[in-house]
This record gives sequence, C-alpha cells and structure tokens, in this order.
Amino acid sequence: MAKMTDRMKDFFKRVPAVVLATATGDGIPNAVPVGAKKIIDDETILLSDQFFNKTLDNMKENPKASVTFWEGHEGYQLKGTIVIETSGKRYEETAKWIEELGNSAGFPLRSKGIVILKIDEIYGVTPGAGAGKLLV
Amino acid sequence: MAKMTDRMKDFFKRVPAVVLATATGDGIPNAVPVGAKKIIDDETILLSDQFFNKTLDNMKENPKASVTFWEGHEGYQLKGTIVIETSGKRYEETAKWIEELGNSAGFPLRSKGIVILKIDEIYGVTPGAGAGKLLV
Repeated sequence: MAKMTDRMKDFFKRVPAVVLATATGDGIPNAVPVGAKKIIDDETILLSDQFFNKTLDNMKENPKASVTFWEGHEGYQLKGTIVIETSGKRYEETAKWIEELGNSAGFPLRSKGIVILKIDEIYGVTPGAGAGKLLV
Repeated sequence: MAKMTDRMKDFFKRVPAVVLATATGDGIPNAVPVGAKKIIDDETILLSDQFFNKTLDNMKENPKASVTFWEGHEGYQLKGTIVIETSGKRYEETAKWIEELGNSAGFPLRSKGIVILKIDEIYGVTPGAGAGKLLV
C-alpha cells in the first residue's frame, strides 16, 4: 500500500479527468480519460464506469491498473489493483451522484459500476530527473 | 493499418500532451503524458523520449502501445505497435527539435530516442454510446 500526500490529493481532485490505463492479460494497453473520480482515503480511489468498454473487459481479465493525472508540468501515476463493484452502498451512492451529475449537465448518465483502486505504488510523471521514479 | 482523419490530426496537434500507455509483457499497464509529439503521416506518429523510464522498459519487452488524446468531451485512442530509433535521420531531426525546444523553454532537454507508432486501430474515447468503439 502507498499513501497519497495532500499535494497529490489536491491534484487528483483539481484535474477535470484522470487517465485509467489497463491491459489485456498478454499486455495490450488501453488508456481512457475518466471524469467521474473520488478519493476514498489516502490509499484508495474510486472511478465510476459509465462508458467503459475495452477497459472493462481488461479489468475483468487482469486487475492491474494505473491512474495518471497531471496539470502543467507536474503529475503523478498511481499503480495498483482494482476491484469492480456493481452493488452495495458505495455503488448506490455513486449511482446517485452520477445521475445527478447527468441531470445538471443535461446529458443522461448512468453508472454501470464502480472501480476501486487500492494504491500499491506512486510514481512521478513530472518532466526532469525524477520522471518515472517511485515516490511512495 | 488505420488512417487518422483530418479532425483527429487537428486534435493530436492541438492538445498540449498525449498519453502514451504501455504494459509489461504480463499486463501491468503504465501511462504517461508526452508533450513532444509529431505526425509523420496519416497512420504514423512520432513521440520523443526525454524521460521515459518504465515506459522504455515496457516498450523493449512489449511493442504494443496506445496513444490517447482528448480535449473537452471529444477524444481518440490510437492503438498499434511501436519501434524505437536512437540513430538515423528521423532521430537526428528530433534531437535538434527537442534541443531547441529546451533552449526556448530555458530548461535543458535531450531526446534519448524516438518512438514511432504505426497505427493499427483508432477508437473513440468520447463519452456516450460511441465510447470505446472502433472508428477506423
């Protein structure tokens, strides 16, 4: 397990979208932007699935994932293992949040499920000597 | 092979950074933003490597990659196979371009190599019914 710092959490919240990268079991990567994101605690984040397609297939086959986010020249990559939930309290709360988000955007949105990422490692993606280095 | 449309090429050029996703041979994904990007032709792009770390290890082990870019609610994912070049005319031209870019930014930059992605498939990452669908 690795814990996000306050600065990382601020970045995660502030960016309009993070990038969720997954891969097939034999290593074909897939990366998509995800706007519906929340911090559960310092080492756990939640993404809501409205439109996942290959991403969902990959996660069912292979639970390893990375979540990258940046603003300007500073950024972070969270690496870990996901679980998918399609029922229960966290899913129901998320489904409500996403429905309200859709209503306020005038664009119908429905959460098909939630992706919970437990963070194992955090890397920098900031250009310079520290790029790609393990931070936490 | 798949060809980018003019609209996709406009998006690719316009965004400040694209996301390069790679994976280990056994499927641990990695995704990083890349600002140094060029279109070679409708089915080929070039990224310059200044700071690749795990990305470079992954590409040496597994040449499958994806490049995702979006602006607002519209975006695309190019999937294909990469080759790395660290010499030759394309590399020399890129090294010069990156050095000049660093000089004008007041931040020393050096291209360690170039990544050439041959595009096999193009997917939409725009929210809605078409999300994740094969476009080209």
